[in-house]
Amino acid sequence: MRHLLDTRSLSRVDALRILDVAEDMADTQRREVKKLPTLRGKTVVNLFFEDSTRTRISFEAAAKRLSADVINFSAKGSSVSKGESLQDTAQTLQAMGADAVVIRHGASGAPRTLATSGWITAGVVNAGDGTHEHPTQALLDAFTIRKRTYGEDSRGRDLAGLHVTIVGDILHSRVARSNVWLLHTLGARVTLVGPPTLIPQDVSAWPARVDYDLDAAIAERPDALMMLRIQLERMNAAYFPTEREYARAWGLDAARLAALPPDSIVMHPGPMNRGLEISAAAADSPRSTVLEQVTNGVSVRMAALYLLLSGERTDEEKEDAR
Amino acid sequence: MRHLLDTRSLSRVDALRILDVAEDMADTQRREVKKLPTLRGKTVVNLFFEDSTRTRISFEAAAKRLSADVINFSAKGSSVSKGESLQDTAQTLQAMGADAVVIRHGASGAPRTLATSGWITAGVVNAGDGTHEHPTQALLDAFTIRKRTYGEDSRGRDLAGLHVTIVGDILHSRVARSNVWLLHTLGARVTLVGPPTLIPQDVSAWPARVDYDLDAAIAERPDALMMLRIQLERMNAAYFPTEREYARAWGLDAARLAALPPDSIVMHPGPMNRGLEISAAAADSPRSTVLEQVTNGVSVRMAALYLLLSGERTDEEKEDAR
Amino acid sequence: MRHLLDTRSLSRVDALRILDVAEDMADTQRREVKKLPTLRGKTVVNLFFEDSTRTRISFEAAAKRLSADVINFSAKGSSVSKGESLQDTAQTLQAMGADAVVIRHGASGAPRTLATSGWITAGVVNAGDGTHEHPTQALLDAFTIRKRTYGEDSRGRDLAGLHVTIVGDILHSRVARSNVWLLHTLGARVTLVGPPTLIPQDVSAWPARVDYDLDAAIAERPDALMMLRIQLERMNAAYFPTEREYARAWGLDAARLAALPPDSIVMHPGPMNRGLEISAAAADSPRSTVLEQVTNGVSVRMAALYLLLSGERTDEEKEDAR
Repeated sequence: MRHLLDTRSLSRVDALRILDVAEDMADTQRREVKKLPTLRGKTVVNLFFEDSTRTRISFEAAAKRLSADVINFSAKGSSVSKGESLQDTAQTLQAMGADAVVIRHGASGAPRTLATSGWITAGVVNAGDGTHEHPTQALLDAFTIRKRTYGEDSRGRDLAGLHVTIVGDILHSRVARSNVWLLHTLGARVTLVGPPTLIPQDVSAWPARVDYDLDAAIAERPDALMMLRIQLERMNAAYFPTEREYARAWGLDAARLAALPPDSIVMHPGPMNRGLEISAAAADSPRSTVLEQVTNGVSVRMAALYLLLSGERTDEEKEDAR
Repeated sequence: MRHLLDTRSLSRVDALRILDVAEDMADTQRREVKKLPTLRGKTVVNLFFEDSTRTRISFEAAAKRLSADVINFSAKGSSVSKGESLQDTAQTLQAMGADAVVIRHGASGAPRTLATSGWITAGVVNAGDGTHEHPTQALLDAFTIRKRTYGEDSRGRDLAGLHVTIVGDILHSRVARSNVWLLHTLGARVTLVGPPTLIPQDVSAWPARVDYDLDAAIAERPDALMMLRIQLERMNAAYFPTEREYARAWGLDAARLAALPPDSIVMHPGPMNRGLEISAAAADSPRSTVLEQVTNGVSVRMAALYLLLSGERTDEEKEDAR
Repeated sequence: MRHLLDTRSLSRVDALRILDVAEDMADTQRREVKKLPTLRGKTVVNLFFEDSTRTRISFEAAAKRLSADVINFSAKGSSVSKGESLQDTAQTLQAMGADAVVIRHGASGAPRTLATSGWITAGVVNAGDGTHEHPTQALLDAFTIRKRTYGEDSRGRDLAGLHVTIVGDILHSRVARSNVWLLHTLGARVTLVGPPTLIPQDVSAWPARVDYDLDAAIAERPDALMMLRIQLERMNAAYFPTEREYARAWGLDAARLAALPPDSIVMHPGPMNRGLEISAAAADSPRSTVLEQVTNGVSVRMAALYLLLSGERTDEEKEDAR
């Protein structure tokens, strides 16, 4: 793998490879000393044009456990804010020795531009771009669903036959987009639920069914119910009237939690607005995978960085595959 | 030790253990290579809800010298500022693999909540909470007093028979509170000095004597005189009239420095307001321990992190103690 | 070497030693594992009173590749912004174990004050002070010129016989000042070009010739043409009328690039204002060394930190030199 830019163009083989390597990484994390020497001498730059402490420290922890050096580059207060172009910023980071650039950017498509423009040769990982994609989030979600479903035997398996329902602001959510494509690639069936104003116009082109009624969607007994975070700063009367109204129609409250089949899991990418899109009871219930998702996020990001940066193994694998 | 939350509930045995391990750490820091492999593979998160570069980098240096990975999490610009609860933030950090959380928080009691709520199992170190406590500051102060008094022979000793006078804004000072309890536990006698408006109402419940007259307090020949930092942003006419008036009545000027016994030490937690609570002559005099306190702070924080995170040794110690 | 404060007082021997060690460092960076154990256990503090992400991460990468621990201390939000003096800040950092302090400061002379005041014994590296100097920038520029000119055979060589032309806001540029002194020491001839308002009054005391006409300067066929960054925030009508006018008179456009001899190199310290002081065609042309300068910056900073911090070697060298 050269880059990880989206899940839409990620092949089933590559997706499963990331998930399987993430299983290996998760195994190492359970041991006493969690540090691996694998990426010693490699430099990972977190190039964040938007604040996202949570995603940034997940990548930072992943890189450090593989013994890479990590340099955090926040665009605020940097030459970027003085008008430097993405090209010059990226080329500068590579010239300083960056082997991988983890980029979070407000503009959809910025990571692909970085990876395909020929500006740099470093590996590029999309850590969220505009309303486009957030591929490592979808991969950690798929990893979480697979592990909850198949436990120790999950290696090599896809998600065929499973049904995942994603609830909330589908329109603005890069998490939803990345999940839809990856879940489809891995064989799962996807339902999208939300207020009509928060469902994209072009949703008919997505490999997913749309529903506006959360109770009806729950009655279909999904294997996983994924509640998206409501971005309050983005909300206004154009999308839905009040927080209370949203919570009543599309929040996962106690009654809806009770209506879910007992082995369905409840997911949330975090950070949660408790009481809005998810009740505390749902967030803290044993079927909630919220914290497993966070833990799995480090393993998935270790896997992605490993596959991008340890070219040797890729060569070996190529030989093994002959 | 599971956590380090305050000095009020810290036993004499545990306090001495921290001080003695800190002596070991200080010994290693004098050698050419200061890096110990002890906490390799452990992750320490600095979770700072208030800015405190000084305390943060002291913990960061301590953790790095023990080969731990350090992740700095400033609450500003993070999901915390988007309204995420302390519970969710802490659980997220632990799910990412945090073995210890060093927390600075504006609310008194936040570290204890974190440690005792059952939310997380990681070790919690209070790096200052509201006007409550700042236990590692008190421990480094006690370490400094002990070392100045007993030199190489300080291991195992408490502070019995010593007299420590703390001067300044006792009302708002977590440093004063932590020092009062720890000094009392270690057998020292404590006098508190300050303007009546800056002495707490409930001070009669503290194991300390109160004086309002600094010159009288100096005439009692304390072994250590600890000048607190005046938080100018907190000061207003309700507390004292002017800076000049404060300096005249409660500042350590040249005359008062001369009136101190020659072997009394002058302490300050830093950063100093030179010319306000302490004169430059006092700050830079040989009896000043200001910089020793900073150096000792790293040793004490290494000791605290070591005792919290190296469970193996605790088990050994338990066996030794049988 | 104890400190690296400026190039004006840097001897030819020391300058060449830094450049030659930087060649060694550059060689190690081309190998698979770029990490050297040389400064393991040493602590480098980046003490930045002005934002400069680019310079900060270059030093950070340099220190980490030598296995030093790096602590980033931004003066914003720290006790410094609460009025702590440079003396107390520096002494505190050293008391925490800093072996070297890399300082960027708005006041010309602050690094020298730090190094010569007796406040601290740690090595001091000037990472840019006011309009005074930025010595590692000049060293990386000299390294770049030397390598482009002499390739593999550059070790031990100076820049005698070469002609370097520096273009732009000479008045406010610490980069220009550091380059003038170092280039002079290394035997190069220097021409300064810019609008009369941006040439310092005392330039007659500098070892450089002044020209106001860029086309005339290019006609002299310089070996290296160094375009300085225009600090837009500093510009106003007192210095030059408009950006367009500046670009027309002193920008390196396509015609001027074509007029340069084919083996002349084009330099820029970055970040570039493409279209203002340098055209995109010039910035991206094969004769541009912009990215090499960035790469060489890490090598030169590794060399500087190495020479300051590995006292053992200095002693050995002293013995060798007997």
